[in-house]
Amino acid sequence: MERIDKQMAFILEADKIKNIARRNHISDGSRTENDAEHSWYFALMALVLSEYANEKVDALKVISMGLIHDIVEIDAGDTFIYDDKAKESQKEREEKAAERIYNILPEDQAREMLALWKEFESCITPESRFARSIDRIAAVILNHASDGKTWMQHGVTLDKIMAVNERIGNGSGELWEYTKRLINDAFEKGMIPRK
Amino acid sequence: MERIDKQMAFILEADKIKNIARRNHISDGSRTENDAEHSWYFALMALVLSEYANEKVDALKVISMGLIHDIVEIDAGDTFIYDDKAKESQKEREEKAAERIYNILPEDQAREMLALWKEFESCITPESRFARSIDRIAAVILNHASDGKTWMQHGVTLDKIMAVNERIGNGSGELWEYTKRLINDAFEKGMIPRK
Repeated sequence: MERIDKQMAFILEADKIKNIARRNHISDGSRTENDAEHSWYFALMALVLSEYANEKVDALKVISMGLIHDIVEIDAGDTFIYDDKAKESQKEREEKAAERIYNILPEDQAREMLALWKEFESCITPESRFARSIDRIAAVILNHASDGKTWMQHGVTLDKIMAVNERIGNGSGELWEYTKRLINDAFEKGMIPRK
Repeated sequence: MERIDKQMAFILEADKIKNIARRNHISDGSRTENDAEHSWYFALMALVLSEYANEKVDALKVISMGLIHDIVEIDAGDTFIYDDKAKESQKEREEKAAERIYNILPEDQAREMLALWKEFESCITPESRFARSIDRIAAVILNHASDGKTWMQHGVTLDKIMAVNERIGNGSGELWEYTKRLINDAFEKGMIPRK
């Protein structure tokens, strides 16, 4: 295969994330969001909000993480952030998927994409910390906008929401302050189950 | 409103493009694609294929164009590229929408986003030419993958497909060569109506 054929094969494979459903709903609550929509939303938020990163970040790198971070779910499926059992096997499933899917690309790009995805997973660089914050905030914003539909459906209580999201502060103190206000507002308005 | 509230209001408004349907189908042909999915696909393709731009391009700028180019369709609706009647009023409808929606952002970002969208529309910079090429190729790839479903449904003939897509060459000669091969393959396999 020529270089361009490998790139196009990867692009066509990636199209499958349009059919991978997440647990959270779009803002009007009419249906759940899919991975392609979420990846776009993540990248758009990174573009608009990068000024709030705790450390200076390369916006292209954060956006690129958003564009490619969920491609592993073609093989590994979506893992709900509040599903502790599924999270046990998540790392292994996703690493296997990453090896298969990014390696559809020409060798140099496969290496770059794998490194980018692993950096996102690692959370040890300014870009990966900020990207993980954006990933979490995106879900809170949509939950708040849709009257807590996903939190209510899955019985996700305030303490769990706080525990999962407090790491937003590692990427952006300001965005964590904003997110806390949203979560508290949601709780006061009855969008979060009481127990 | 504080700066961050304006940014979040824009992000929430932008979420509406998840409900705007395009004419083309996702690769498996099971349903039409929406604007959020398309914007992600555009940005991913720009990330993977920027080496093929005729002129050197700033990848972040091209990707950013992909992320924001369809937000005007919240007010203006999707205009099918083969619908000449709808295209007559497209410019006016979209400019009005851009003024309203990008101005939800703080003034500095509103100015930047409006300028970026206008640059994309203008097609007079290397980034905008390449971005427009990516926008067109994305539709051809998905049409080819879905056995020409949209071309067949809307009676889009080979001469029309060629006329609309030959401008891909303005952004990338190599990608236009590749796209021509795809279109010809589609024609030979009966994915394009004969008349």
